[in-house]
Amino acid sequence: MSSTFAIAVVGATGSVGESLLQLLEERDFPVTDLHLLASSESAGRSLAFKGRNLRVRAVEGFDFRTVQLVFFAADPAVTRAHAEAVRKAGCSLIDVSGALPADMAPRVVPEVNGEAISGQAPFALTSPASVAVAVGLVLGALRDQLQVQKVVIDAGLAVSSRGREGVAELARQTAELLNGRALEPRLFDRQMAFNVLAQVDEADADGHGSLERRIHEDVKALLGEGLQSVAVNCHQVPVFFGDSLSVTVQASTPVELDKVLAALEAAAGIELVEAGDYPTVIGDAVGQDEVYVGRVRRGMDDPCQLTLWIASDNVRKGAALNAVQLGELLIKHYL
Amino acid sequence: MSSTFAIAVVGATGSVGESLLQLLEERDFPVTDLHLLASSESAGRSLAFKGRNLRVRAVEGFDFRTVQLVFFAADPAVTRAHAEAVRKAGCSLIDVSGALPADMAPRVVPEVNGEAISGQAPFALTSPASVAVAVGLVLGALRDQLQVQKVVIDAGLAVSSRGREGVAELARQTAELLNGRALEPRLFDRQMAFNVLAQVDEADADGHGSLERRIHEDVKALLGEGLQSVAVNCHQVPVFFGDSLSVTVQASTPVELDKVLAALEAAAGIELVEAGDYPTVIGDAVGQDEVYVGRVRRGMDDPCQLTLWIASDNVRKGAALNAVQLGELLIKHYL
Repeated sequence: MSSTFAIAVVGATGSVGESLLQLLEERDFPVTDLHLLASSESAGRSLAFKGRNLRVRAVEGFDFRTVQLVFFAADPAVTRAHAEAVRKAGCSLIDVSGALPADMAPRVVPEVNGEAISGQAPFALTSPASVAVAVGLVLGALRDQLQVQKVVIDAGLAVSSRGREGVAELARQTAELLNGRALEPRLFDRQMAFNVLAQVDEADADGHGSLERRIHEDVKALLGEGLQSVAVNCHQVPVFFGDSLSVTVQASTPVELDKVLAALEAAAGIELVEAGDYPTVIGDAVGQDEVYVGRVRRGMDDPCQLTLWIASDNVRKGAALNAVQLGELLIKHYL
Repeated sequence: MSSTFAIAVVGATGSVGESLLQLLEERDFPVTDLHLLASSESAGRSLAFKGRNLRVRAVEGFDFRTVQLVFFAADPAVTRAHAEAVRKAGCSLIDVSGALPADMAPRVVPEVNGEAISGQAPFALTSPASVAVAVGLVLGALRDQLQVQKVVIDAGLAVSSRGREGVAELARQTAELLNGRALEPRLFDRQMAFNVLAQVDEADADGHGSLERRIHEDVKALLGEGLQSVAVNCHQVPVFFGDSLSVTVQASTPVELDKVLAALEAAAGIELVEAGDYPTVIGDAVGQDEVYVGRVRRGMDDPCQLTLWIASDNVRKGAALNAVQLGELLIKHYL
């Protein structure tokens, strides 16, 4: 690995960017020079890193030749606008937005398919959608126990999946309703407080949302070819932080529950909650590096069916931590 | 049918009881004499019915020979305590609590399996769990279109599934949190506001909750023997009223979406929301007699897979209305 290492974070002022900076500091990421980049509206602000205040600069016009690795933690459009310049500069990139096609920037969770990284710098990697990171970690840990054929993922997404605006909007709506005031939804297309929205973004002609498509593709990329089908249902729940997931798996042979539990217990990045208790986003998963798993049980009719519950911090492990882990992997083995 | 008809409602002061009374009045149920019964703590209160105030009496000591039909809208223990006395009195009963075994009190949704009622008075019928009523109605409407083999039901239950106390507790917790006060959960085992609980009641040795078992049994009773497996995942969402359901179905042949949509459009008791929009509990289902269905789509990998979203009023159609419809069916054809 290089002795000096310059990196950039695009989208540093967003919620994933903020979590990224925190993790780079906490994990003592080997960076000698850190550039914080954002849209021109956010440029000029200062953010703390290792006791220093770093000024946020506009991503437009930044010279990517001055860094070896860049994290993209902004909207897909931002990644798309700069990916080619980054590559030409010989700089590697890690994208959390899912903007780039899989053949250009493979989806990787280090614990699941770190071996998917190959070739030489500049690298381009995608950190999968947060739901796919969590499901990939958990089902990846069971690869020796189960031949998974079908997966149904029901994902209750926190409003932080819509960034800081989502958090502010749920708080505002809740306060208005509790104070008996009339509600005018912004951001979400209807009342979000005390309601569950069946859809989190626009649906395509077949009725699937773009995040559902992304999760579907990412889970298949992580878990490989044996998978016959992945059904994904995303809905927005009135929760500020964390993904709450119900996962029902169809395996090719009867599930041996004791082996499944032992594998989850032993897996890196997973915190198994024992039967009788269960994890939730508030109180367990949010703010933690681990993906929490509980309610691991076989189907009522079908011994080849396995159901489990996952609570995961969508911003931290679901996006920022996995991206930082990918960066660590690149630095250790490839850069 | 009898020209005079005396009925009793046990649990009249609860939320399902209240909705029952409202529906008996709205639908002009042919009752000449209405007895409101409850626990001894609630006895003595008065409730309005068709412009009169009726006094609530204690169910203990009530002479069931004075009525021809009784609705049980209280806890299962109350139904169990009185079912034998009701039968001996020659009185028919309709239970919403699911306290009685299926061979003693079959699970019926009139639109789906009204023909399951047979024999002669006194009848005993069970109105299925609210989630099973909604799923039964929707999949029952598709029986001519699909041979359903497997169903995965992911149910986000409102706190009103825990009665008035659940509603009060979510409101209290939300207000405390918004006011920055420390939270002490009551009723629920942890923070319910802005959180999703993975489990709604105690799990058995296999990890399934008792409501999940009940929904499983009820859906199988409603949809018949072709069903190979029904997986049920119930979780509690911070919503006051209404069931929010994701249903993923595996059929034996490719799903013909246009026929499915036409059948749902034509079905009694169902309101189909067109693609591009979707129903939610707040704004659509709550307070309505219909079960709302939307996001009807085929699987991304598997043309034999069908996914849909259901929003339903758990107290009204899910419990009170179905019970009243069962009463109307009994009176029309059997009593």
